[in-house]
Parts: sequence; structure tokens; C-alpha cells
Amino acid sequence: MGKGGMSHGGAEESSEENMAAWLVGLNTLKIQPFKLPPLGPHDVRVRMKAVGICGSDTLKCAHFVVEEPMVIGHECAGIIEEVGSDVKSLVVGDRVALEPGISCWRCDHCKTGRYNLCPEMKFFATPPVHGSLANQIVHPADLCFKLPDNVSLEEGAMCEPLSVGIHACRRADVGPETNVLIMGAGPIGLVTMLSARAFGAPRIIIVDVDDNRLAVAKNLGADGVVKVSTDIKPLFPRMPNHIFIDIKLIGKVDIVGIFRYKNTWPLCLEFLRTGRIDVKPLITHRFGFSQKEVEDAFETSARGGNAIKVMFNL
Amino acid sequence: MGKGGMSHGGAEESSEENMAAWLVGLNTLKIQPFKLPPLGPHDVRVRMKAVGICGSDTLKCAHFVVEEPMVIGHECAGIIEEVGSDVKSLVVGDRVALEPGISCWRCDHCKTGRYNLCPEMKFFATPPVHGSLANQIVHPADLCFKLPDNVSLEEGAMCEPLSVGIHACRRADVGPETNVLIMGAGPIGLVTMLSARAFGAPRIIIVDVDDNRLAVAKNLGADGVVKVSTDIKPLFPRMPNHIFIDIKLIGKVDIVGIFRYKNTWPLCLEFLRTGRIDVKPLITHRFGFSQKEVEDAFETSARGGNAIKVMFNL
Amino acid sequence: MGKGGMSHGGAEESSEENMAAWLVGLNTLKIQPFKLPPLGPHDVRVRMKAVGICGSDTLKCAHFVVEEPMVIGHECAGIIEEVGSDVKSLVVGDRVALEPGISCWRCDHCKTGRYNLCPEMKFFATPPVHGSLANQIVHPADLCFKLPDNVSLEEGAMCEPLSVGIHACRRADVGPETNVLIMGAGPIGLVTMLSARAFGAPRIIIVDVDDNRLAVAKNLGADGVVKVSTDIKPLFPRMPNHIFIDIKLIGKVDIVGIFRYKNTWPLCLEFLRTGRIDVKPLITHRFGFSQKEVEDAFETSARGGNAIKVMFNL
Amino acid sequence: MGKGGMSHGGAEESSEENMAAWLVGLNTLKIQPFKLPPLGPHDVRVRMKAVGICGSDTLKCAHFVVEEPMVIGHECAGIIEEVGSDVKSLVVGDRVALEPGISCWRCDHCKTGRYNLCPEMKFFATPPVHGSLANQIVHPADLCFKLPDNVSLEEGAMCEPLSVGIHACRRADVGPETNVLIMGAGPIGLVTMLSARAFGAPRIIIVDVDDNRLAVAKNLGADGVVKVSTDIKPLFPRMPNHIFIDIKLIGKVDIVGIFRYKNTWPLCLEFLRTGRIDVKPLITHRFGFSQKEVEDAFETSARGGNAIKVMFNL
Repeated sequence: MGKGGMSHGGAEESSEENMAAWLVGLNTLKIQPFKLPPLGPHDVRVRMKAVGICGSDTLKCAHFVVEEPMVIGHECAGIIEEVGSDVKSLVVGDRVALEPGISCWRCDHCKTGRYNLCPEMKFFATPPVHGSLANQIVHPADLCFKLPDNVSLEEGAMCEPLSVGIHACRRADVGPETNVLIMGAGPIGLVTMLSARAFGAPRIIIVDVDDNRLAVAKNLGADGVVKVSTDIKPLFPRMPNHIFIDIKLIGKVDIVGIFRYKNTWPLCLEFLRTGRIDVKPLITHRFGFSQKEVEDAFETSARGGNAIKVMFNL
Repeated sequence: MGKGGMSHGGAEESSEENMAAWLVGLNTLKIQPFKLPPLGPHDVRVRMKAVGICGSDTLKCAHFVVEEPMVIGHECAGIIEEVGSDVKSLVVGDRVALEPGISCWRCDHCKTGRYNLCPEMKFFATPPVHGSLANQIVHPADLCFKLPDNVSLEEGAMCEPLSVGIHACRRADVGPETNVLIMGAGPIGLVTMLSARAFGAPRIIIVDVDDNRLAVAKNLGADGVVKVSTDIKPLFPRMPNHIFIDIKLIGKVDIVGIFRYKNTWPLCLEFLRTGRIDVKPLITHRFGFSQKEVEDAFETSARGGNAIKVMFNL
Repeated sequence: MGKGGMSHGGAEESSEENMAAWLVGLNTLKIQPFKLPPLGPHDVRVRMKAVGICGSDTLKCAHFVVEEPMVIGHECAGIIEEVGSDVKSLVVGDRVALEPGISCWRCDHCKTGRYNLCPEMKFFATPPVHGSLANQIVHPADLCFKLPDNVSLEEGAMCEPLSVGIHACRRADVGPETNVLIMGAGPIGLVTMLSARAFGAPRIIIVDVDDNRLAVAKNLGADGVVKVSTDIKPLFPRMPNHIFIDIKLIGKVDIVGIFRYKNTWPLCLEFLRTGRIDVKPLITHRFGFSQKEVEDAFETSARGGNAIKVMFNL
Repeated sequence: MGKGGMSHGGAEESSEENMAAWLVGLNTLKIQPFKLPPLGPHDVRVRMKAVGICGSDTLKCAHFVVEEPMVIGHECAGIIEEVGSDVKSLVVGDRVALEPGISCWRCDHCKTGRYNLCPEMKFFATPPVHGSLANQIVHPADLCFKLPDNVSLEEGAMCEPLSVGIHACRRADVGPETNVLIMGAGPIGLVTMLSARAFGAPRIIIVDVDDNRLAVAKNLGADGVVKVSTDIKPLFPRMPNHIFIDIKLIGKVDIVGIFRYKNTWPLCLEFLRTGRIDVKPLITHRFGFSQKEVEDAFETSARGGNAIKVMFNL
């Protein structure tokens, strides 16, 4: 922690002020102080080292649906600086990837093994819960997963988007007999492709409107790519809220809904450790954690172009 | 068979001519002779005793999509009159319910336990395959299921529509923890309701535009009924080929496609035998097998009204 | 609560001392004071009204494997006397059945939907955790399930053994196509039979050495009973720790392990409410909560004979 | 077929006599003429090119449980020489791997997707059905799977043992989150290891008594090997017919029975085509198809030692 001879640090002992990126208005982010909550017996305090920008972050900036200022960010990894009194699984100095959602564990969804559907979930940067683009945050220890030695903090932050792909593959029971078609070669499309391959899918085809993205998909191992002429989303005034399904398919296909993920970090880290999944090529841009760089980073991510994953190094 | 002292009958030995209801043109059915195919070693010859009319039959009559005249009918039960040389499971005189589709057993669908999706399936009254509204038909023995003593031939014929409900409940894994909403209280909606109850569904709500149908549903055990003001189908020039799905549901629900059924007759018969399902109230109209009565029966079925299931007694 | 005009009671405010049945030595139970823990924000305080004796209770008495005195009992129901500050689902006066195990919700088993396998579980009367045969206990609100109006407190206490049968039927995917053979017509064998019937099992055969138990099973609806000549357990110096499996069965059967239960109380209560399961005939003996009656009750339960379920009314 | 100018051959037209390896007595194999059955419309006639020896073959030789002489062999691949009138999927000259069992497709097992459990199955070299160690055999076309260009006939013959591993992995739902322990590093243990790896198993440990076999397992990719001191089988006068299971495991594990395989050839061939499984190192010995070599081959296979898979090239 670089705090002299202290064997146990505490945010309150530090002369350093904890700063975070606050979404304070339409497309307006400000780096401002962020007071940490007290450390519970099962919590850890984590110094953030790598935080990625997600499409949902840029949407939040563009629409500013939050009612009051909120710290943004939810794809993250860092280093443990303090552990609660009952924490046995982690020690100060451990490098960890953070799962962003805290479930209630009292509702039916939690108890029946679908904690991702918990209606009481407190999820980073989902109003009114603050996110993790900050120098430090406090989080439950059981949602902090120790990185293997050969997995970097940036890769740790990538566990969050990768989890979406992993969960989709589990839900769809992807295996060596599953042929996969993926609509969209953005970050989620690409992590789904990498996941499907790691689950053994023999043939993966990916569809997009963008030649660059399709080229990336091809480089990352797509068996085939399909270019379509027109993006669907801009044709709608807002996100389409219905999908069409050819009724002739009914009887032949099942449609499986996906919402976030559950229990994915251990598998993500195992795939990264063994090299069965390599997320490093997805990280196309890196920024520091100054006011100017935060603004630049979000602009870069929103502009799209050749940006796939924009990452902060704090 | 009432053929004097003969212990083994054969269609060819009989002076009686085998008659069937042929769809020969738009809304035109004619009772005409129907020549039986030779009896294979695994086949049986069945004297039809009860044949129900399905909505798909009336649609076929109304659209006459067949290219040449075809015998109609696929919900049926009868009495064995002759068995092939290798048939061990049935004897002459057995009362049986008939499963209408003959699968190829060579394709992937058949081999992997989804014979209902067999692209080579020969299904009663699906062009160019003839149906079963006839005095006699020839059918594989393994698709003829012996009726328990306390199950009537009419109930046997009802196994076909009931199978659709049974298969749907199996596919959706309906059990004592499944609340069920059924759209439409026609024959298929009603057998699905009866099936869901037999699978243990604690609460079943059914929706329709028709007060009479909802009253029937209530009498048959629906926990609640919902009336809607307008039927959707007439609003379309042809059957709608797309459905809309609220995207907010995605992540919370799975959509499971259903196509016909598989391996349902034994369970249907067990439900009927034990009284856990009673299909008799669904049979609202009965007709004999004369030219006039066939015409009347199809008109009655097409008109709807208080007709649920129209049944021929041959 | 009979505490005069108090709208909110607290154990500490009461002049009444909370008493419990302590296992203090080999086959020695003593009614002694039991100090309640503080009420957490998600806890409730429950006045126990019905507590059943389980075979595992009598085994604990007979072997006294506990290292220090422990309150016994885990099949129970009672009435809410106080609710924690964050409890919204229950109010004072609610009649509730209690699920006895408190899981950690931080381990892999809990998170992946198998909280019954949690190695950190704190389970009533599993050393060193105290049980529930007491005037009052404190328990998490989410493990207290409100009884429907037509379900008695005794039936509520029966949810615990019934849960074992429900869980077994879920794990084995019992349904209208499952024939069931049950070895042993003791309380667990009988609740498994009742559960299997409620899950739709068409045919259930039960095996035991005891004519009386088999008669009970028959009265409760077994389709057939099989008497065997010799009980296996006394042939072993201690509980057998191996089972034999005919290797010829391998390839044809799956063996599914069962450990306790999970998420069973709501379904138990629904089955009891609707009358699909009736556990009342299983309750053969009732006792009050005096020192003498506790001793008599445990002797009655241990003796077996015609005792199926022995219940305390507190 | 090398039969001059004939474009369509027929066994009966050939001057060549069809020879096969007949098991005629205890440990006594004789190469003798084998008359082919007539070619049905859905059959093909195959010239055998590669046939492997299975442990079950050597057991049959050692015990001679057959009642009359029987052609042995069931792991095989060859070249199509003639196709039945209704065969569309194959042409003369196609290289094919053969699935050895012909199911009835009329029983419940077949219809419900478990044709491997068909009680009427006619399986190569399972008395009284003849096997495939012959110059030519007749077999249903749908059980002959065309080899990809880069898969050899020997690899095709290996699909049969490999199928056992594939089926086991499917039944146990092996995937990237499954750690695998395999008891025995014989041919079946090894193909199970290769299959588990192809299904994504991250960690596979294999156990055997034989250093050589464990070394092979290690070379083929086992993550760890465990040597045990004593083979269990010779300790029994005959094959043990019971297994012991630690009762403490019950509740934590499921035991899934495996019998042969179903629908495995397409996946085997896909794994071989893409190189995800390499079975070539398992083939340690090769023999021709003379009386002397057949005797030597079976001796080699029975002796064990460094022999893993013994293969005939016909």
C-alpha cells in the first residue's frame, strides 16, 4: 500500500482523499471525492487498478436517467487494502476481480439459485448504487475473486463482460455439438464468441454491420463472418422493445433469456489462467484517471469506431 | 368381425368395400372407396370406430391445399381386425387408439429422441398421406395402443388432441410448482388445461373471447378465466407468422417450442384409465358416417359456437 | 402475546423465563432456562407451539455425541412475537413454520443454488447449534413461512419431515410417469410416499418389516406393500456405511443423492393448504412440555411400535 | 472394388469368397466362409478395411459363452461396395465407420431416445448376431458414417471405443467446469480421458496399476496419474457383481449409469476431423487377416502388456 510502516491500513488513516468519477449531468462526468462506507466484518476495501467502460455506461451518460450524482463504472479489478474481521479468504495485497452485484439472499430468486434475478440486488452504477470507477471501494469479500498470478488486473476487469458470454453459453448449454450464430460483433458479441469456443462450440458465425469489427471477430477465431448492410438500432427512436420471431421456428427452437450472470468469475479466471480464453486483444484503448482522460475515454468509447474495450488504469 | 366362422379375417376376403371420407375439392368431402395397402409384418388392420374432427381438418377443407384427393381424419380409435406376421403386442379384437405419424427412424431427429420433428414423417391426412376417417386402415402395430377396459373408443380417439397438451406440459416441465396461463379455450387450450392439472399445476388461468368456451373451461376446472374483447386471428388476412415478445421478459422467461407430440399415448391412456383426466365433456357432438352426416359434422365443427369436439361413430 | 397492553414485546421485558429441552447426557433431557440471542434486523422471535420428534433426535439422545449441553428439536412451528427492524414479510401474531438451517450465502454451494450442502450451515440441534424445543427462539424471518389459515401449527411442524420427501421427489424428477418403490415405511418413507403421490406418481410400492407400518402406508394410499422378514440395521454394530448395488443395474439407472432439502416450505404449505397432502394421520402421539412429558415423549418415539410422529404442544 | 469394368458389384457376382473370423470354441478362432444376407433397400454392403480387437472379444474367446460358431469383431470401418435401392446418403466407394448395433425402433427405449437400451438390439458379435471381422458385411446405411477425407479407416474403426467415452461424457454432462477422475488406463479409460478433454474438462486424473499404461495416459494428456498397487479384478473368482459406495457421499454425488452409446459417430468423426481428439497413439499393434495373424493378434490383445489397441488391416 505504500503507506510507510503500517501493516493494516484504513482509508480514514490516510491523508489521501478517495476520488471517483461521478456522473453529474447529461454527458457530464466529474472526478470528485467519494466517501467510503464503513467496512463490515465480511467486507474488503479494494484499491481499484483497472476499470473498463461498458456500453451501458455511455448510455447512462447520454441519457442521464439517474436522479442524483452517481459514481459510474462496474468492470473492475484491484488490490486488497483492508479486510473485515471475519474475512478468511483474502489478505491485504491480494489482486482481485470484482463481481459487481450484491444480492439479498433472502428472496426466492436468490434461494433457488438465480441470484442474478434478485429484485433487491445492489449493482455497481445502477441507480442509486454507486459504481467502482474510484481510487478505492468497499465490497463484500465473497464477490472479490483472487487473480491467478498470470492473470493481469486488466484481464481481471474483463471478467465482467466475459461473464455475460459465459452465462449465455451455460444457459444455452453450449458444447462440442453446438453450432453458434452471434448477432453483433461488439464487446459482448466477441466475449460470447470466445466463451462459446471455450465451451467447445465447433463452428461460430458472427454478424455485424462493421467491417472492422468483423475483421476483429475473424482474428479472434470466428469460423465465418456475415456483413449486414444496416444497423437496426438507429432505425428506432429508442431501444426496440419487441422482437419478431418467425412462427415457423416455434416447435424447433427454444428461446432462452439471459440476464447478467451468476457464478461466472471462477470460470472466467480459470479460462484466463489456462489461456483457453484471451481477452487482451479486446482492450484497444487505455486511459489514466484524470478529469481530462476520463472525458476522453468516455468519448472514445461512445464514438465506437475501432474502439472495442476502453480501459482505465488507476 | 361378424364374418361367420372365420377366425382370421382379411380385407380382401370381405365382400364389403372399404369406404373413406375424401377431401376432393374446396369444402367438398365425398365418401368413396379407399383401397388398403398390403399388410406388412409389423402392421395391423384396424376397423375405425371413433374419429374426431380437428381444427386442422376444417382448415384443410377450407383451403384445399392438397393437390389430389386425400382421405381426411387423424384423431381415431378402432378395433384390430388383422395382425401382421411379426406382431406380438396385439391380437384381433383389441381396442386401440392410433398415433397418426410414422417416423423414418433413420434421421438424426428420430435417433436423438425427437421423432416428432422427423422430416420424413408420414402423418395421417398430411398430403400426400391419407388420413383415417375410413371404415378400415392399415397402420404399424407399435403406433396402436391397446385401450384399458374402462376407456371407450371415443376417449381413445381423444388421445390425439390430448397428446398436444401432454407434450406441452412435458416440454414446459409442468409440475406442482408451475402456475399456468393458457391463451385460448378451444379444444387444444382445454386439453392443455386438463394435462396441466394432471401434471400437478396448482393454478391454471385460461383466456378466450368466447363466454361459452370460458364457461366450459371453468366447469372443467380452470381456477380463473379471463375474457378478452377481440379475437386476434380474423385481424390478419392469413395466419400471423410472427409473434411479438416484450423484450423486458427476456432474461426472465424461456420460450419453449412445441411441435405435435411424442410418446404420449401410454400416458394419455393411463390418465384416462385412472380418471385423472376426463375428456368426455369435450365431446359435444356426434355423427354417423354417411355422406350427409359427414357434411353436417364438418359444418358443425367449422361453425364453432358451442361445438368443442365433433366425433364420428363409424 | 398476553403481555397486557404492550404492542411490541421483547423476551427481556417479560417476567417469564424462556425454557428449553436440553440434551445434557446420555438419554438425559432436562428442561432448563435458555437465553435468547439478540434480535437482529432480519430476525423474528417466535413462540413455539408445535415441535415434533425426529429419529435423529432419539439417536442424539442415545449416543450423546454432543460435547456440551444442547437444546434439542428441529421440526417446529409457532407464533411471531417480535420482528426485527428490517422485517417486512411478517408481523406479530403470524403463525409460521420454521425451516431449521441457516446457510452462509457466501460459499459456492449457497451461490449455485444448493444451500442445503452449505458446509457452514447452522442447523437446529446440530452441535454446537441449539434446537427449537423451547418456549421461544430467535430465527431469520426468511426461514419462517406464514401458515395458510387452514393449516394448523402441528401441520406446520410437519413441513420439516415432509420437506425430505418433497426434496427427494424433486431430485428424482417424480411425475405422472414415475413408478416409485420406497424402502421403509417410517415417517420419512411415509412423507416420501405422500410427496410422490402429490407429484403425480401413478404407482407407489412401499417395503417394511413391520405389519403395522405397512398397514398405515396402505391406509395412506400405497398402491402395494411388501413385507420383508428382517430389519437390516440391527445386523450392523453401527449404521452401515456402505450400500451394495447390483452392477447389472448400472447403465439402466441413475442414483441420485439426497441431503436434507431446499426451498421446500412454500410447496409443503401449498400441498397442505389445498389438501393434496394430509400429514395429520402421521401424528400418532401428543405431549405437553413438562419434564415428565418430555421424557415420556422421547421414550415413546424411541420405542417405535405404533408411534409414527410424536408431537409436543407447547 | 477392383472387379474389372463392373460399375455395380454384388457379392454373389464375385468369384471371391467372403471370409470371416469365426469363434468356434474355447480360444479358437477360424477363418471360414461367411455368407452375406441379402441387401435390403436401406442397407449397404461394406468391404471391411480396419477392425479393432476389444477386451470383450478376448473375453468371449476365453469363455466361449456362444452356443454356436459366431463371427467376431465390432470395431470397424470399410468401403461401400453396394448400396440398397432406397439409400441416398451413401455411394459406392465411400469410406465409412460402422455403428455396430441395430435397434428395433418399436420399443419404448428406442422411441424415447435411448436406443442403446433396446432389448431387441442386434449388435455385432453379441450372440447370436455375427460380428464384422470379415471381408465384407451387410449393414443398414444409417449406421454407416462417411469418413471425412482426413480421417483414416483405422481412426474410423476407433469411433466404436471412442463412442463409449463420448457417451459417458455426455451422460455426466462434462464441460469446462468438470474435474474428472478415471479409474483404469486401458483403452476405455484412455478414450474417456480424450473425450473428457474434448468436452472441455480442465483437470483429468487417471488411476491404474500399470506404470506403462499410466505413462501412456500422461503422454496423451492426463493432468495427473495415480498408481495403485493391486488390480481388483483377479481378486474375484468372477467379475465382481457389486460395488461399494461410501454412504457419506450420498447426498453429494449422483451416480450415472452408462450402457454402450447412442448418436456418437458424428461427434467422434468431427473430433477426429478437427484434431480435437487424436486416437492414433492408441493403436499399438497391427495385423493382417490370415489365420496365423488373427491368432497372433488375439494373443497380443489378451496378453495386455504394452498393447493398447490391436488393429486388423484387411
